[in-house]
Amino acid sequence: MISEFDLIAKYFKRPAARADLGVGDDCALLRQTTGMQTAISTDMLVSGTHFFPDTDPEQLGHKALAVNLSDLAAMGATPTACTLAVAMQAPDESWIAAFAKGILTLADRYQCELIGGDTTRGPLNICITVFGQIPAGQALRRDGAKAGDDIWISGTIGDARLALAHLRQELILPEDQFQQVLPRLQKPVPRVELGIALRNIAHAALDLSDGLLGDLGHILDASHAGAAINTDDLPISSILRQQDEKWRLQCTLGGGDDYELCFTAPVEKREQVLEAARLSHTPVTRIGSIDPQPGIRLYNAAGPLARTGIHSFDHFATPEK
Amino acid sequence: MISEFDLIAKYFKRPAARADLGVGDDCALLRQTTGMQTAISTDMLVSGTHFFPDTDPEQLGHKALAVNLSDLAAMGATPTACTLAVAMQAPDESWIAAFAKGILTLADRYQCELIGGDTTRGPLNICITVFGQIPAGQALRRDGAKAGDDIWISGTIGDARLALAHLRQELILPEDQFQQVLPRLQKPVPRVELGIALRNIAHAALDLSDGLLGDLGHILDASHAGAAINTDDLPISSILRQQDEKWRLQCTLGGGDDYELCFTAPVEKREQVLEAARLSHTPVTRIGSIDPQPGIRLYNAAGPLARTGIHSFDHFATPEK
Repeated sequence: MISEFDLIAKYFKRPAARADLGVGDDCALLRQTTGMQTAISTDMLVSGTHFFPDTDPEQLGHKALAVNLSDLAAMGATPTACTLAVAMQAPDESWIAAFAKGILTLADRYQCELIGGDTTRGPLNICITVFGQIPAGQALRRDGAKAGDDIWISGTIGDARLALAHLRQELILPEDQFQQVLPRLQKPVPRVELGIALRNIAHAALDLSDGLLGDLGHILDASHAGAAINTDDLPISSILRQQDEKWRLQCTLGGGDDYELCFTAPVEKREQVLEAARLSHTPVTRIGSIDPQPGIRLYNAAGPLARTGIHSFDHFATPEK
Repeated sequence: MISEFDLIAKYFKRPAARADLGVGDDCALLRQTTGMQTAISTDMLVSGTHFFPDTDPEQLGHKALAVNLSDLAAMGATPTACTLAVAMQAPDESWIAAFAKGILTLADRYQCELIGGDTTRGPLNICITVFGQIPAGQALRRDGAKAGDDIWISGTIGDARLALAHLRQELILPEDQFQQVLPRLQKPVPRVELGIALRNIAHAALDLSDGLLGDLGHILDASHAGAAINTDDLPISSILRQQDEKWRLQCTLGGGDDYELCFTAPVEKREQVLEAARLSHTPVTRIGSIDPQPGIRLYNAAGPLARTGIHSFDHFATPEK
């Protein structure tokens, strides 16, 4: 049987490019530069919790790194490097080759060098830690939202949750619609360029991974503020628009796995936000505003909206049904 | 049921001390300083592979961080921070409290700040990534061993493997002996101070986690060199000394989980090595020397020794028995 060392070397060990030392020693080494900060995030993906056990390994590799890059994007950091720890039941070489391709293709796109890792035996589990760079003081934190700020989100939200609903047979989509929304669940695109473009413009930001209501709540908690959201303004795909209101709200507000950025910026910077969006080729939509009163108030053209029945995503909560 | 966010906040979220930003945002932020390098290592510990499912959670927390700090020690880096990702089947609060205590007590001892993490549902799996600082160019790498170098190891080796042999009923130790060797398996002490003291003295270093033969082999491969080891000189406890030669060699050479440093240094720096050992209150023992001929040659007072039957540790190989 091929050993773990051989497998790692074969698929993941490449000469260090920007890192001072990459895969193959006790530690990797990254150079430091005064005036810069290192942004660090870690995410663990577990088979059966975050993905189906038979998920295509190349897509899985892509997604495992994408969700981490999305955290860098949410801070406005430029990706530099990552580490990968993976547990698997047996070293299936073809699985590993495809998984490595998924990770490394995305890593190359963002010059996010794989600098170290660990491979071990166990139930399938992938833990990636990513590193980014940002000039000191320019990070987009969660605690910077100010009353009066616009609330923006990038792209469209809800399609990943809609695809999951189909897979869970909570609803049935026509096959062509399912195939259109499925990539949002399987191959999310981290909004790295937008995050960088929003430095010195946005007051606060995070990425939407557990649903808008819950995630926006983190900004509000950290910023000691509240928000009013016009649900008519939530940017959704033409496919989600065909669903009834219950599903539209569940997918957008409770959703999960969107990996779009949610950020706040002062009203007087609307033009700069739109310019950042243009420069990064990323659509953005204004969905509401920050106010001093705690909590999230939903409304639409018809008036205030109750939040009844919308569940945010929590890995430890009983799965929604 | 208490949510993952509440659990994280309750046991792991503490105000950032040295980090610019700690737990609670999309990324943590660490300041950079020109002339320093960041050392990074990640290790994944899986229930049933690296520890027994009923392992005491406080000891498990200690060990999960200790094995990572040991990687920093092997580079000569000063610990600065760590992230923790953990999957567990249910958020058992008392387990988490003890686990957090194990990690944070050790983290505090080395001022290794917990700056971020992830908590999710799944088979028990712990992935820690550690960060250290080292002046650029002073890291103890694996590829620096030179022919003629002494080979040294810290402390004693083999007791962790001996304790495991007892737990696996491969042999039976008297209870008092078992209790004396068990902490070597359960609560390893990372040799952080020694690693730092060896900067500019050692040519190459790593930490012994998979057994001396295999681990030393990594130094030799990276350095394109070989080694001769006098097995009579291997530092072992009085308890392991009571075992027959087969078990002494299996535990020391094939071993695993020692978390001692193995390093090479030029002969003319013997006094400096011993001074580094004194300063760091860590015993060191010279066990052989590096030579240009590839491979590891074992010998003792009686002559050359065969390696037959000694198995190094590989998480993907069939478990030894």
